[in-house]
Amino acid sequence: MEDASPPCTATDDVDQTGGLHLIVELRNGVGLDDPARIERAFRQAVEAAEATLLHIHLHRFSPQGVTGVALLAESHITVHTWPEHAYGAFDVFMCGAADPWAVVEVLKTAFASDEVEVRALRRGGVLI
Amino acid sequence: MEDASPPCTATDDVDQTGGLHLIVELRNGVGLDDPARIERAFRQAVEAAEATLLHIHLHRFSPQGVTGVALLAESHITVHTWPEHAYGAFDVFMCGAADPWAVVEVLKTAFASDEVEVRALRRGGVLI
Repeated sequence: MEDASPPCTATDDVDQTGGLHLIVELRNGVGLDDPARIERAFRQAVEAAEATLLHIHLHRFSPQGVTGVALLAESHITVHTWPEHAYGAFDVFMCGAADPWAVVEVLKTAFASDEVEVRALRRGGVLI
Repeated sequence: MEDASPPCTATDDVDQTGGLHLIVELRNGVGLDDPARIERAFRQAVEAAEATLLHIHLHRFSPQGVTGVALLAESHITVHTWPEHAYGAFDVFMCGAADPWAVVEVLKTAFASDEVEVRALRRGGVLI
């Protein structure tokens, strides 16, 4: 599958590699066993971040747990949930002008969590 | 889609949430614009880690760049490449008994890189 240029290349500037990667630990959440709810949250998050969705896939385990990904032109959002502990491990990695912090706000609301910790990592660029 | 229990749940022990997440910055690599090569590396990496592949998807941009994911029963491997800078941003997140460090060795060989930096993050559990 091929398409137009990704939003963060086509430049000689090595600073345009990589992006901002948010490691999101969401606790005390609800709805983390519902792939339809997670997919809706992902689609809303992509829109809020002004990113471009390439591919989405969710997988539900039995008796519980969901794992999934939204691949973006700007990188990705992933999720792995342990509903029995009301915990979800999310990643939000975006390059270019997309806003990964907007995703965090959508996730807080979508899963009604008041306990979200975020570690922000720089990927690529000249710093690493 | 549903299937059997994920390998890292079905327990009351909150320490069994999350896992080990390796943030891999691969520089000076070759073959990072070739989705078939990346898919082969991912499949080899999953086997080396003794993980279980659920879903794989690669996307190639024009004029260059590949983005992709291997969703695992144990979490995920992702990649986003900037072949024009010989750089790939990989993530290797695995719970349970799977060995994410084995993936790093496969990636070094697959992309002939002598410049791989890894940050190791604990996800979930009682520590965060």
